[in-house]
Amino acid sequence: MDLSRLCIHTITTRPWSLDVAIEQYSRAGIGGISVWRQALAGQDVRRAGERIGNAGLQVVSLCRAGFFTSHTAAERRQAIDGNLTAIDEAAALGAPLLVLVCGATPGQPLELSRQQIETGIAAILPHAESCGVRLGIEALHPMYAADRSAVNTLAQAIDMAQRLGSPQVGVVLDVYHVWWDPHLYDEIARCGRLGRLFAVHLSDWKVPTTDMLNDRGLMGEGCIPLAAICRAIQAAGFGGFYEVEIFSSTYWQMNQKQFLQHIIAAYTQL
Amino acid sequence: MDLSRLCIHTITTRPWSLDVAIEQYSRAGIGGISVWRQALAGQDVRRAGERIGNAGLQVVSLCRAGFFTSHTAAERRQAIDGNLTAIDEAAALGAPLLVLVCGATPGQPLELSRQQIETGIAAILPHAESCGVRLGIEALHPMYAADRSAVNTLAQAIDMAQRLGSPQVGVVLDVYHVWWDPHLYDEIARCGRLGRLFAVHLSDWKVPTTDMLNDRGLMGEGCIPLAAICRAIQAAGFGGFYEVEIFSSTYWQMNQKQFLQHIIAAYTQL
Repeated sequence: MDLSRLCIHTITTRPWSLDVAIEQYSRAGIGGISVWRQALAGQDVRRAGERIGNAGLQVVSLCRAGFFTSHTAAERRQAIDGNLTAIDEAAALGAPLLVLVCGATPGQPLELSRQQIETGIAAILPHAESCGVRLGIEALHPMYAADRSAVNTLAQAIDMAQRLGSPQVGVVLDVYHVWWDPHLYDEIARCGRLGRLFAVHLSDWKVPTTDMLNDRGLMGEGCIPLAAICRAIQAAGFGGFYEVEIFSSTYWQMNQKQFLQHIIAAYTQL
Repeated sequence: MDLSRLCIHTITTRPWSLDVAIEQYSRAGIGGISVWRQALAGQDVRRAGERIGNAGLQVVSLCRAGFFTSHTAAERRQAIDGNLTAIDEAAALGAPLLVLVCGATPGQPLELSRQQIETGIAAILPHAESCGVRLGIEALHPMYAADRSAVNTLAQAIDMAQRLGSPQVGVVLDVYHVWWDPHLYDEIARCGRLGRLFAVHLSDWKVPTTDMLNDRGLMGEGCIPLAAICRAIQAAGFGGFYEVEIFSSTYWQMNQKQFLQHIIAAYTQL
């Protein structure tokens, strides 16, 4: 069972502290870990990165920064400052990638939010480049367009990365957010051709979905054509990790060791 | 206060019987009514249409048919038969338009569902043409892609209508479903140019939205840029009704006469 390209997001096993997650992922033979910033609260980030490395795990990304939009210039400036700090954290942790959830401000036209996002990323890009941290624009499901991200399709994310121009900016593809897109396969291929596919997040869309935030499914439990999407991702030349990111009130209530075994089984089956 | 282009869907005031809805909409001076098929259960459809006409209301559409997709050919055939019946009902009611929620079958590739939808509409089109009933393809929000509709963008709906080729097939634009779309304004303009914009549904997207089905907002209560969208719709040459379609557990619990006044106020403000 080769789990070298499997990565788990610490938010997936939210009840575990970072150290428990490191220990358990490592014991299970998993190759990578994506660290949520909440899991780092109150910790020395550099030392956390060392503990991860010592456990034989690779840090895949730091999640998440972004949220560039606001009605006021002062808040947008604050957001940029916060993102510069997140880049420093990523560098200290040894994370090659910072995931950006770009933001949306209710009542503000999405077109304006998109401009603010692009301006914000452009503002932090030089620091990211000098720290050697890549920035990943994550397209979020349209059901989050009101208040979480005005970037809702892979095409938008790719176009924005292209306009920003730096090889340091790319796209995070989360199947939960983009599986419905009629242009999905074309955009995956384009993203690969452009060398902009930086990360892949896996979970599943349950039927019914009872909560818009915390009711994601384990791979195979829902209706996303994961095998087809993963084939397209491989065909696009992606050689990175497959990252399991599951927000689930149900799974968070479960015994996390059992849950981890379920994740491994679902990944292996896929 | 000109309410001649305001239409209300009977589902919006779900606690009211069809006859109460007819009486109340008419008294308020509202121009149009869209009838949900549930409201017709057990009724003589032709007579219901006559009562609506006698009350000075115009039937704008019958909602809803569609759901063309299935794993089995037998079920798809049943769906087509059900749609033929719905066309008969629309004709009997005097509804010029039948709204199609196209369907999606969990676990079936969306591409296949889209083919089945197009095949299904093609199969019912001759009957719709001979009955003088127009068919409106409604694009549903991507959060319904799993089990309600594999048609999730205005572009998909317009393209499908174009391929079907008949002037009897067009598009239903519901702001709740499409407001997030980066191509929204371009597609509204295209839809108008092609003469395919058959109907417009209004409501609003609340922040937060606590239920994926029954938590829609009244116009002005959420974050959809309704004024901008309505301007684009007018600029596209749309001369039909603005139909209020609000699924809301909250409003259904309210005094419906008061709710109707809120709807009129929100429409007038818009």
